Amino acid sequence: MIRRGFQVAAGLGRHRALLRAPLLLPRINPASAFGSSTDLRVSRFCRPKADLKDYALPNASWCPDMLSLYHEFLEKTKTDDWVKVPSFKSNRHHIQGFKLPLGLEVTSDKNDWRIITRCTEVEGQGYEYVIFFHPREKKSVCLFQPGPYLEGIPGFAHGGSLATMTDEAFSKTAYLAGEGLFTLNFSIKYKNFVPVGSLAVLNINVEKIEDQKMYLSCIIQSRDQQTVYAKASGVFLQMQLEEESPQ
Amino acid sequence: MIRRGFQVAAGLGRHRALLRAPLLLPRINPASAFGSSTDLRVSRFCRPKADLKDYALPNASWCPDMLSLYHEFLEKTKTDDWVKVPSFKSNRHHIQGFKLPLGLEVTSDKNDWRIITRCTEVEGQGYEYVIFFHPREKKSVCLFQPGPYLEGIPGFAHGGSLATMTDEAFSKTAYLAGEGLFTLNFSIKYKNFVPVGSLAVLNINVEKIEDQKMYLSCIIQSRDQQTVYAKASGVFLQMQLEEESPQ
Repeated sequence: MIRRGFQVAAGLGRHRALLRAPLLLPRINPASAFGSSTDLRVSRFCRPKADLKDYALPNASWCPDMLSLYHEFLEKTKTDDWVKVPSFKSNRHHIQGFKLPLGLEVTSDKNDWRIITRCTEVEGQGYEYVIFFHPREKKSVCLFQPGPYLEGIPGFAHGGSLATMTDEAFSKTAYLAGEGLFTLNFSIKYKNFVPVGSLAVLNINVEKIEDQKMYLSCIIQSRDQQTVYAKASGVFLQMQLEEESPQ
Repeated sequence: MIRRGFQVAAGLGRHRALLRAPLLLPRINPASAFGSSTDLRVSRFCRPKADLKDYALPNASWCPDMLSLYHEFLEKTKTDDWVKVPSFKSNRHHIQGFKLPLGLEVTSDKNDWRIITRCTEVEGQGYEYVIFFHPREKKSVCLFQPGPYLEGIPGFAHGGSLATMTDEAFSKTAYLAGEGLFTLNFSIKYKNFVPVGSLAVLNINVEKIEDQKMYLSCIIQSRDQQTVYAKASGVFLQMQLEEESPQ
């Protein structure tokens, strides 16, 4: 079954480079990308699904900073427009009921597919995180606690774990804020090391949208904002997920 | 024990930003960084260690492309200056016998520390890779096969896995080529998706060294070079590991 995915990608690679693809597609209406459609996407994407485990919930490995900031934001979801974004084991669950553009097909086989940020299910060892999104202000906050399976230099998170966490938080933000679907560019400047087991707070903003490209920025810092760990930016391509027709 | 690491990092964060630190350090002699010291670093870093598992060896999950290209490069290690870089579970093993600069200490506790690219030990599910380094030409080739625990959009490797793999391959190349030790900046442009389970070949070059900063570039493509998956660049800070004094 996976073979099909390979063939699609081979075709993409040889004949349909991603950067050229949007020229062939109907343009997204900016008004729809930033209007009530945001609320529709949020309500579809962020509603709890009873049959799927949400990994963005506190567990015994969370450090006190992570836990208390989580509860602060959870309070804000009741009064201040913030929405908690659920986190399933695979993007397959996030996009249930939708088709990908560009002829990309969701293969189904017996592989244990996992989104990279849920690559380990052992609590506290890999990526512990939760994302909160603010639909009106098009911004997100991601609380991230890297575990000992994400080490770079001894005792500290690998730069790749910060890049991955930021790219993934960008990805969810870009989609919810305006159908930003694929990363085109990503850059990160490292300032200080993040100790394994501690909290890094990612503040993400949508800076602008031009030519179906969404530009995002992120500052990663300690909870007290006294230590900047890194600054990042990313560009996402806007593309629409289509609803699957009923079988 | 980990607490000590946190305190060091807190100190670093507040008083000693990484970007300012090199001004306080003795400058690296470019001649030593690029002379016989490269051979010394390679011989120390790349020799097999009988008591440690080298994860950069073929296993049943490797696709035929990965396996055959591995054997091609292995042949080149016999005749053409290429060196196979071993890959241990943690950087703690790679830097055995050395101290980190900047007051960073290697904590020792009972945690199961893993370098991010060896975050899962299940063959084929995470990062399958091997790096070959060419000391004279200061370049590397990394053969990378992303597994289903590194998924982004269904069936394809998450952009973060390519960023992480490239940063890690940069890191080993930068150290071996001239004591490039910490990532300062990292950028990646994505062109096409890498199918899970297939081979991506990373070609890495050291472009230049200026002011104790090493500039690296990488092109990530299919084995036949017909599909460019991504292009990346990185800047590393040169710093010396000191030998530990005998107890």
